[in-house]
Amino acid sequence: MIQTDALVIGAGPVGLFQVFQLGLLDIKAHVVDSLPHPGGQCAELYADKPIYDIPGTPRTTGRELVASLLQQIKPFGASFHLCQEVSTLAQQDDGRFLVETSRTSFLAKTIFIAAGVGSFQPKRLKIAGLDSFEGSQLFHHADESARFAGKNVLVVGGDEAAVDSAIRLAGPGPQQSKSVTLLHRRDVLQASAEVLAHFGALRESGAASFQVGQVTDITTEDGKLTAARITDVDGNTTALPVDCMLVLLGLSPRLGPLSQWGLAMERKQLQVDTEKFSTSIPGIFAVGDINTYPGKKKLILCGFHECTLAAYAAAEIIFPGQKIPFQYTTTSPKLHKLLGVELPRAD
Amino acid sequence: MIQTDALVIGAGPVGLFQVFQLGLLDIKAHVVDSLPHPGGQCAELYADKPIYDIPGTPRTTGRELVASLLQQIKPFGASFHLCQEVSTLAQQDDGRFLVETSRTSFLAKTIFIAAGVGSFQPKRLKIAGLDSFEGSQLFHHADESARFAGKNVLVVGGDEAAVDSAIRLAGPGPQQSKSVTLLHRRDVLQASAEVLAHFGALRESGAASFQVGQVTDITTEDGKLTAARITDVDGNTTALPVDCMLVLLGLSPRLGPLSQWGLAMERKQLQVDTEKFSTSIPGIFAVGDINTYPGKKKLILCGFHECTLAAYAAAEIIFPGQKIPFQYTTTSPKLHKLLGVELPRAD
Repeated sequence: MIQTDALVIGAGPVGLFQVFQLGLLDIKAHVVDSLPHPGGQCAELYADKPIYDIPGTPRTTGRELVASLLQQIKPFGASFHLCQEVSTLAQQDDGRFLVETSRTSFLAKTIFIAAGVGSFQPKRLKIAGLDSFEGSQLFHHADESARFAGKNVLVVGGDEAAVDSAIRLAGPGPQQSKSVTLLHRRDVLQASAEVLAHFGALRESGAASFQVGQVTDITTEDGKLTAARITDVDGNTTALPVDCMLVLLGLSPRLGPLSQWGLAMERKQLQVDTEKFSTSIPGIFAVGDINTYPGKKKLILCGFHECTLAAYAAAEIIFPGQKIPFQYTTTSPKLHKLLGVELPRAD
Repeated sequence: MIQTDALVIGAGPVGLFQVFQLGLLDIKAHVVDSLPHPGGQCAELYADKPIYDIPGTPRTTGRELVASLLQQIKPFGASFHLCQEVSTLAQQDDGRFLVETSRTSFLAKTIFIAAGVGSFQPKRLKIAGLDSFEGSQLFHHADESARFAGKNVLVVGGDEAAVDSAIRLAGPGPQQSKSVTLLHRRDVLQASAEVLAHFGALRESGAASFQVGQVTDITTEDGKLTAARITDVDGNTTALPVDCMLVLLGLSPRLGPLSQWGLAMERKQLQVDTEKFSTSIPGIFAVGDINTYPGKKKLILCGFHECTLAAYAAAEIIFPGQKIPFQYTTTSPKLHKLLGVELPRAD
C-alpha cells in the first residue's frame, strides 16, 4: 500500500504537467498508466506526427512533446506505475481515497484523473478459447519477446510495430524464435520503406514468413495451444502449428472502471467546475480530454491550464489551513530550489 | 480607418497566441501595443530571465518565448500597430466596435483585450513645465537617438538601458552627441560589468560624464529648454546646460482608458466568464493577466487556454450561422494549409 498526497491517473501530456504543477506546490505525485511508457495518446497515436499548437513550440511531435515534459518534471521525482489500470475506488473515513490497480494499492489524499479517452487496451482477436492462453502462449505486447526464444511464433498484424516485432524475433540474439510467421489480412504492410526492406530480406532468406489471411480458429491439445487456423482471402482454411501468438492489432481506448466510481458524467466525460476542475467528489479532479464543462475544447494546451488550477485546489486539501503561496518560476527562490536550478544573479 | 474581424489589444505572449488561435479559425487579426516591439511584460520585465513553467518548454526566457510565439504566428500575417495606446471605444449600430488609438482607428467585429497589467508607460520626471517639451527636447525612448546628434544631452537613469544609451550617444557614428551626461540619484549603476567598463572608459577619456543627483527644476528661454537644475545629495543645486533630455527611469503599467469602456470590473481586472472569456460586453473578450474569474491564476499558460476558448467564441460572432469546425493541427489538411506546412506523408 502506497500512501501519497497525490495520485495522477494517466501519464499523457496533461498527467505529466499535472506532476509539474503539483511539484511547484511541493506535492509529490504517483502516476499510474495502463501503457508500458509515459505519453498516452501522444505516444500511441501520433508519436511521429507533427503538433503545431503547443504555445511557444511552433512544431513538435507526440514523442518530442512527451520527452520535453518528462525533462520538465524531472526535478519532482514522481513515481511511475506503468502497465496497470485502476480498478476500484473507496473513500476512507479520514477522507483519503483507496485506489486499487491490477498491481498496486494507493491511499491518496487527492486524485487527478488525466485519463484522456480512457486506458489503451490492445485490440484482441475474438476467437473462442483463445483468451485463456493470455500470458502463457498469447501476448499483446512486443516487449515480452524474451518468452518467444526457440518457439514457433505467429505475429498477427500489419503495422510497423508488427513488422518490427517479426524482424526482431527472426533475427539472431537471445530472443530468436524457432520460426516467425507474420499474418496480415491484406498483402500491404504499413511500415517504413527501411523496415519493409529488412523484412523482405528475411523472407528471401527463409528466416521469416508472411501470410495473408485471418485467424478464424485455434487448435488445442491437452490444454495447450498447438495451431492457429488461418483463413485466406479465398475462404480456404489451413492450420499453422504455433507455440505462441503475438497479436499486435493496435490499441483502443476504454473508460473502464472509472465510469463506475460514482462521479457525475455527461456523455462519457467527467463533469467538472472551471475553478478547481473538481469532479462531483471533492478531492478527485479531472483534467484534459476526459473532462467536460461549458466551452470545453479537447486540446492539450487547455489540459495544461486545467491541471494547473486543479493543483492549487488540491493544495488546499493537502495542506489544510495553510495559505497556498502563488509564486512565479522566474522570481521565486523557493521554486528555484524545488526546480533544482541556480538562482539568477542578483542585478 | 482599418476594418477587421479581430482587434487584439496587447502584444504580450497571450495576445500573440490569440493571433495564433484566431488564425487557426481563418480569422486575421490586427494587434495594437503601446511598446515599440511585441512581447509585453516578457520583453520589458524579464527578457533575459528564466521561465520554467511554459508547458513542454523546460526552460526559456522572456525574449526566447516571444521569439517562439512570433515564429508560431508567422503563417497568419497579423498586422502590428506599435507605439500606440487605445483610447476610445464606441459600439456602432451594426454591432462593430470603433476603437481609436493615438495613431489609428479600427472598426472591429471582435476585440480581445490582452493588455496584461495595462500599457507600459515610461516613468516621468515630475517637473513643472517639462512635459511641454515632449518630442522636441524631452524623450523617453532611447531609440529616438538620431535626434540627439550634435546636441548636449542629459540622460537620466541608472539601469542598463540608461548606461547603454549614454554609451551610444557618446560614441562615434551618425548619432553622436556633442556632450553626454548620465545622471543617477545614487552612485551605483545597475548594468552588466561589460557595459560598466565601457562607460568607465568613456568617462576616463572625457567622452561622457556622470553625475549623482536629481533634476529638481529646469531653465527655459524663449520657449526652449536650456538647462536642467540638478540637486546633489548634499542639497546643492547647479545648472547643467542641455539641448535635450532622455529620461529612462523604467516603465510602469497603467490600465488607462480601458477602464472607462464600461466593462464590468473587479479590483482593476476585467470580469469574464470561463466559457468564452467574454467581458460584460458581448464581442469584447479579455484574456491573460487582465481578466478575473473564480480560480484565476496570473500565469501565461492560463492565458493561452483563455485566448483559445475566446477565439472559438469570437468565430461564432464573425461567422454567424456557420458551424465552427474543431480540428487538430496534427491531422487537419485545412489547418495545414493555413499553417503553410506540408501535409504529412500518408501511411
